[in-house]
Amino acid sequence: MKYLRSAVVCCLALVLVLAVQVWFRQPHFSRCPGWFASCREPSSLFSYKLSLFQKGSREEQAKRALPQHPLDPLTFSEIQQVHTVLTNSSVSAKTNRKYLRKAGSKLSILLHAVSLEEPDKEDVLAWKKGDPMPTRKASVILMVGGTVYRIIVDLTSLIVESEEVYQGAGTPTLNFDDMNSASALPLQHPEFLEALKSRELDKDEVACLPLSNGWYNVKEEEGKRLIKVQCFYAGGTSNFYMRPIEGITMVVDMDLRKIVKYIEHDNVPLPKAEGTDFRLSAQKGDILKLFNTISLEQPDGPSFFVDGHNVKWANWEFHVKPDYRAGAIISQAAVRDPLTGVLRSVLYKGFASELFVPYMDPTEGWFFKTYMDAGEYGFGLMCMPLQPLNDCPRNAHYMDGVFVDADGKPYVRPNMLCIFESYAGDVAWRHTESPISDYEYKESRPKVTLVVRVIASVANYDYILDWQFQTDGLIRVKVGMSGILMVKATSHDTVNEANEANEELYGTMLAERTIGVIHDHFITFYLDLDVDGTDNSFVQNKMVRKKPAEGSSLRKSYWGVEKLVAKTEDDGKVKLSLFKPADYTVMNPKKKTKVGNPVSYKIVPGKTAGSLLALDDPPQIRAAFTNNQMWVTPYNRSEEYAGGLYVYASHGEETVSRWTRRDRPIEDRDIVLWYTVGFHHVPCQEDFPVMPTVTESFELKPTNFFEANPIIKTYPNYEKDLPQCTFSA
Amino acid sequence: MKYLRSAVVCCLALVLVLAVQVWFRQPHFSRCPGWFASCREPSSLFSYKLSLFQKGSREEQAKRALPQHPLDPLTFSEIQQVHTVLTNSSVSAKTNRKYLRKAGSKLSILLHAVSLEEPDKEDVLAWKKGDPMPTRKASVILMVGGTVYRIIVDLTSLIVESEEVYQGAGTPTLNFDDMNSASALPLQHPEFLEALKSRELDKDEVACLPLSNGWYNVKEEEGKRLIKVQCFYAGGTSNFYMRPIEGITMVVDMDLRKIVKYIEHDNVPLPKAEGTDFRLSAQKGDILKLFNTISLEQPDGPSFFVDGHNVKWANWEFHVKPDYRAGAIISQAAVRDPLTGVLRSVLYKGFASELFVPYMDPTEGWFFKTYMDAGEYGFGLMCMPLQPLNDCPRNAHYMDGVFVDADGKPYVRPNMLCIFESYAGDVAWRHTESPISDYEYKESRPKVTLVVRVIASVANYDYILDWQFQTDGLIRVKVGMSGILMVKATSHDTVNEANEANEELYGTMLAERTIGVIHDHFITFYLDLDVDGTDNSFVQNKMVRKKPAEGSSLRKSYWGVEKLVAKTEDDGKVKLSLFKPADYTVMNPKKKTKVGNPVSYKIVPGKTAGSLLALDDPPQIRAAFTNNQMWVTPYNRSEEYAGGLYVYASHGEETVSRWTRRDRPIEDRDIVLWYTVGFHHVPCQEDFPVMPTVTESFELKPTNFFEANPIIKTYPNYEKDLPQCTFSA
Repeated sequence: MKYLRSAVVCCLALVLVLAVQVWFRQPHFSRCPGWFASCREPSSLFSYKLSLFQKGSREEQAKRALPQHPLDPLTFSEIQQVHTVLTNSSVSAKTNRKYLRKAGSKLSILLHAVSLEEPDKEDVLAWKKGDPMPTRKASVILMVGGTVYRIIVDLTSLIVESEEVYQGAGTPTLNFDDMNSASALPLQHPEFLEALKSRELDKDEVACLPLSNGWYNVKEEEGKRLIKVQCFYAGGTSNFYMRPIEGITMVVDMDLRKIVKYIEHDNVPLPKAEGTDFRLSAQKGDILKLFNTISLEQPDGPSFFVDGHNVKWANWEFHVKPDYRAGAIISQAAVRDPLTGVLRSVLYKGFASELFVPYMDPTEGWFFKTYMDAGEYGFGLMCMPLQPLNDCPRNAHYMDGVFVDADGKPYVRPNMLCIFESYAGDVAWRHTESPISDYEYKESRPKVTLVVRVIASVANYDYILDWQFQTDGLIRVKVGMSGILMVKATSHDTVNEANEANEELYGTMLAERTIGVIHDHFITFYLDLDVDGTDNSFVQNKMVRKKPAEGSSLRKSYWGVEKLVAKTEDDGKVKLSLFKPADYTVMNPKKKTKVGNPVSYKIVPGKTAGSLLALDDPPQIRAAFTNNQMWVTPYNRSEEYAGGLYVYASHGEETVSRWTRRDRPIEDRDIVLWYTVGFHHVPCQEDFPVMPTVTESFELKPTNFFEANPIIKTYPNYEKDLPQCTFSA
Repeated sequence: MKYLRSAVVCCLALVLVLAVQVWFRQPHFSRCPGWFASCREPSSLFSYKLSLFQKGSREEQAKRALPQHPLDPLTFSEIQQVHTVLTNSSVSAKTNRKYLRKAGSKLSILLHAVSLEEPDKEDVLAWKKGDPMPTRKASVILMVGGTVYRIIVDLTSLIVESEEVYQGAGTPTLNFDDMNSASALPLQHPEFLEALKSRELDKDEVACLPLSNGWYNVKEEEGKRLIKVQCFYAGGTSNFYMRPIEGITMVVDMDLRKIVKYIEHDNVPLPKAEGTDFRLSAQKGDILKLFNTISLEQPDGPSFFVDGHNVKWANWEFHVKPDYRAGAIISQAAVRDPLTGVLRSVLYKGFASELFVPYMDPTEGWFFKTYMDAGEYGFGLMCMPLQPLNDCPRNAHYMDGVFVDADGKPYVRPNMLCIFESYAGDVAWRHTESPISDYEYKESRPKVTLVVRVIASVANYDYILDWQFQTDGLIRVKVGMSGILMVKATSHDTVNEANEANEELYGTMLAERTIGVIHDHFITFYLDLDVDGTDNSFVQNKMVRKKPAEGSSLRKSYWGVEKLVAKTEDDGKVKLSLFKPADYTVMNPKKKTKVGNPVSYKIVPGKTAGSLLALDDPPQIRAAFTNNQMWVTPYNRSEEYAGGLYVYASHGEETVSRWTRRDRPIEDRDIVLWYTVGFHHVPCQEDFPVMPTVTESFELKPTNFFEANPIIKTYPNYEKDLPQCTFSA
């Protein structure tokens, strides 16, 4: 206990010192643009927190918040309670002292995640507004001395309800302490400092990134939490990503907080700073004013209602919450049937479960770059505050996230998520009849949608994740990608030079000495569809060429639907093929429309991509969830993350691919569908120095769910209803 | 000549009589909603024209219009000139008398198309504003006595420049006279009237549709212009499509204007009217007000400029024209390079070249339904006036089409095309840096696009065709589909009943007695890309798995690009496959970026579908252009229509598939790319009685075309720049 108190005092002093330093150093921030890296203190954990804590009013608001729905994320004060349970022995003394003792071996408890342990699905489904809240519980993932613990804290009784030591491969999502401390080490490392000197680089301009190590079946790496660190040069630009200090990789043991391996495998000159800075403030010459102001205007205000994390809009109701790992989680999405007025369930839970981003350069400094962004870095932790009017339009509603620092303290991530209505000038449905009568038979309705958006900036890349709700019952999930490429420096200035040197580029030359390395993005979504109830079946309506009976028709062929109701997980595995098409639906076998069609939602793939890696390549083993475009599993609350809960340096032992080997029954029961959106990215010069957004999507589409088009009885736009707009100036 | 004059007088009298009738009958229009069909006069050709002629000011405007650009469509007065050349023997007497004599065998010349004969591409490319206009010419397609003529009229000298008799299979696009007269015949046909009586149907409520006959290698059909007519019942609903008078098909010889075959192959009761009418005025009970008014507002007005058919917006310039066959044609699209300020060509010409819409029911009344909407019906002729505020948003600019009636007279199709700016709340590019500094490293730019839209209502279906231009140089071509399904009546009320009767439905039961028949849509685009000049090459950058050299890497696989520059047409044929991906580019082999990448545009397929029909099935032979997703041909001004110029009842002798058999060289020359957007449509109840819009798209994306992201130097949105809006009320 004595040690602890000293530690706390020590900490507080440190906080004070750092706070003062941070405050006074702020003008230098622009010269020191690191991600987790920094030209400042070894650990920027505290300064990071402080800068967010300056958002005083948002924090005050968060402190007052109470959970209103069983799925509401942990509140600020609940996280404080968790902290208390874990650190204060007066509650459940015996159980907690164990953690305290273990934690005492370091300066603090090192938390990797604190999030709501959701109540059982049946309890959530049974709950109604006004009912007593099911017991609130927190799931805590922490590491003590290399051991991973998962602890459930009961927030009513304030005790540790259960504790589980994880024995398998893979470690938890990195916390900011892991990332910040790793990226700070190079600037204290003599060999690296020497290298900077010999390359004539100013260490104050250096920013380093913690790059997950992957897993390559290397014996000496087993049992260690290793991360690779590479550095960049911010001299002359804020876009340090475009100036990699190529050829130096440092391996950090995150538990020892030490560089355990320094590899200088190449010495490539730095690419130029010129043309890399994309900030408005850095532009020279005229800024293009390409178009007049155009704005989505709603003089009556938006027509959605947000109460805590519950959203109502048009015929939709759902729950949405920020999540440290997934970014945003949509729960209990239900759509109102226009015939009965009844809310009908569609999606119990949907979120981006895992990402896989392998780079296609097998050489020393690059081969390991096979990221799993959600489980390794925390997709939600990387969701930076959205910028009003540009990341989301006017009238957007912003929702804050409340997350937990490595030492268990809550903090607020303001504007982490936005909700807005969108209208692009498109048509929800229409028909123009006859050229004769041009009055009675012209019907057209504008398409207005509701968008829930988070944007995760996982270091260089920005993932724009949208859940778009349509009044016709369709949900479109969109993945947009912008941000900055991960580039490789080369000594060549042109493609010709590289060709003459017979150098394989593994990508596209974007500018002098700069290669945009080829890579993929796979985003695998967890979709617990509950179509009009929990028990559903997955159906492949295969489109199959048929031949009319001999002599019965002048046609030689047509196609029809062969319905395959998936019995077990093997039947739920889908590899998409243009010439073997099918409609993929989740149907409720117990509910039929009046004329007898099974009530269903269709999963409509968009353009996508499959992984081209060999199945026995270690990154593909870990990311085996990308082996198919779809999987279907029976609902199992422990199977939420396509690549496993502990994905960092995992061995692929816990993936949806492994789980489905059991070939469990999936017919007429609560099932979960997994769908992967894939991109192959051969960079092009237009992606330099920041990428125009590229978007792909898939849809969940009502299919014989409604008795008829649910938005027939809606209004068109009339001139008289539209606003009068002027400029304020 | 005497006969002719009498005919003209006769005609005028008829026009007057019909005009009066039409005028006074207008209140009945709502009970008589036929497409071309009608419960009125045998031919509604004149009434159709008259109703459009009521748009007096638009016609006055059209009459004053002069061509301003070599690609401008024929003006109102140019069409009148064509008419004069064809009918007035005082000009080029000898040549024209021939047509007059031939035409004299009927009451009038029967024109199928009059459109601009575009000048040679090199002349268009050489032309600059202020230059004398290249000679204006009209291309005329007409039929006399079963013979198809293509005539080029020189509009300067007012002579027939050339005449070509078409000898092959296939006839021209139907004109309204064909369609109207065919659909009017049933109501004069005794057997049909008898059938109506026996089914207890009121003939005043019957609307008939002319359905193209296809080609099925039937000997007795050769050499005839046949069309099938089926009828619908509008009793109790404006949506007669949902009440097919199933089981009766009439075959009309369009040249004889006669029903040559009456087939009553079934007697199925009429589906109910209930729930089929989607007009606002027909709705009972409360209309849903699902959301508050939301509007795209531009207090400074739109930022595009339209001068005649030339459009300038942001960094784009292009020419756009309505076209009777394609709907809209985009020409000479060029984007301004931000570095040099120079306009660089991208697309010389792009349009929807042909459609193929096969239905998947091989039985008597349905097997032949394998439409090729552009060449058979005229996609542009079917573009009805767009409805402001609903088909296109506020601030849209509308462009009129000037078309030609069967007798050679011009008429105006008002609001046929719209141009507008769109902003959906999306992001053009962005990056949020570090969680530490939240000031300097947050950059985000709103995505605003320009949309050119036409909507073709080909009888029941509504095709929303968008050309969407982005400031980053990307062109997105979108095909949205709404409108009404073609349904089949059945005697069964439920799926169970049908199953028990062992009846194959060939579709989905949408409502009692109503089957939505399975079908496909394929829309093949002609894309004459001219990337920085006319001479281009088509490149498949195949993504191929590779193995690192033994012992060189811990990775077992990666993928790289294998570049295949297409030498001949065979290399340009592409069947898309998820696991054999490639980037498909059109590159300019003579132009490279500074670092040495070939200047290119990429064709980015979206979600699409391939035809599942057998290659030897007659409809697939005719629509062999859908055998691949892409084709590349050398530029050839006579090869513009993927299924041939004369597609009606064609035998597939003129398709892009046939042309490419020659395997012509396509490297480093003017090439044309053909891309097909495909949909498989298994209808669902939500599509009843009018379909929510479904949209697919593909993109033309600059790929090493610019030296860098062309929209770095642009402004974000600022609150101060946005408008203040109130309601006028």
